[in-house]
Amino acid sequence: MNIIYHTGSVTRKKRNELNNHKSVVIWLTGLSGSGKSTLAHLVEQRLQNIGCRTFVLDGDNVRHGLSSNLTFSEDDRKENIRRVGEVAKLMMEAGMIVITAFISPFEKDRNLVRQSVAKEDFIEIYCKASLKVCESRDVKGFYKLARSGKIKNYTGIDSPYEAPINPELEVDSGNESVEGSVTKIIDFLKHKGLLIDNV
Amino acid sequence: MNIIYHTGSVTRKKRNELNNHKSVVIWLTGLSGSGKSTLAHLVEQRLQNIGCRTFVLDGDNVRHGLSSNLTFSEDDRKENIRRVGEVAKLMMEAGMIVITAFISPFEKDRNLVRQSVAKEDFIEIYCKASLKVCESRDVKGFYKLARSGKIKNYTGIDSPYEAPINPELEVDSGNESVEGSVTKIIDFLKHKGLLIDNV
Repeated sequence: MNIIYHTGSVTRKKRNELNNHKSVVIWLTGLSGSGKSTLAHLVEQRLQNIGCRTFVLDGDNVRHGLSSNLTFSEDDRKENIRRVGEVAKLMMEAGMIVITAFISPFEKDRNLVRQSVAKEDFIEIYCKASLKVCESRDVKGFYKLARSGKIKNYTGIDSPYEAPINPELEVDSGNESVEGSVTKIIDFLKHKGLLIDNV
Repeated sequence: MNIIYHTGSVTRKKRNELNNHKSVVIWLTGLSGSGKSTLAHLVEQRLQNIGCRTFVLDGDNVRHGLSSNLTFSEDDRKENIRRVGEVAKLMMEAGMIVITAFISPFEKDRNLVRQSVAKEDFIEIYCKASLKVCESRDVKGFYKLARSGKIKNYTGIDSPYEAPINPELEVDSGNESVEGSVTKIIDFLKHKGLLIDNV
């Protein structure tokens, strides 16, 4: 057997042509309770309805698997975001529209991912909702635990959230309807020429 | 905005229906130089020709990204394989036929991945080639460096390779033609009912 390298014969371009849409990383950031995961899954559903290949990376499928050996210390949260970025890039290379839903509170960590791909490959979406709104929702009960000191380093309580300075898109997920935010995101993707029939 | 969870509305089953094939992890294992990466990319090309969604995970795209903070110590190699397994599972969940091409010398590490998915989701393929053949190829020049002691813990030289005891498939990549091995793998996938029009 002669070893001949054939790496890269199936390129991202060919995958995009097969899928009939471009691949991209859509990075949702915002406080816990700002609606990232809900929005991610609803956007995914809308994209699937029109035949796009998509995947959502969020705490549910990353923290129990790839990052199951990480804690919530500052270093480990940083490493978690790094890994999410690397997996998102692999999936984008594989032709998918990848939607990530992590608080990702630090500008520096988000920018490391942004800077590791081409400009048009990274769409940062700020899910804007005030701490007051998010804390009143407290879907997982974590804000209460953080306020009582039972959880440490909780973003918004005793750990900072650095809002994006210049995100590609901002949705007012603290006030507007879920459907409103979803439509805004889908319209943005259409406008960018990323969706079906626009390869 | 009411928070309503819609996680999981786009299921693996729906993705497989959209793709018109099943998703699976194809795990190639074998010595360095046994042809894993070459076979992986040729199998991928053949699958892409018939419209399958595929991706190859190998040292080229994992060691420089997701695992760039790992060394080649025993612990780090174990962690590398664990991460590859987790990413492969995410991609399988995303509907892809994922082909991994790593030496993955230890039965225990391969079995950890195997045991974390359903039986039919993991296809271990042993790329069988003797050390003599692989060393004579020495594509990367690493065997020579390992023999001279300039690289430590090199599989086959001063670190063991544990051949699979009961792999789903074995290809004689030390002797048969590349095309022969590729066809054997494709035929196996067809026989298993994984390919197009068999969802």
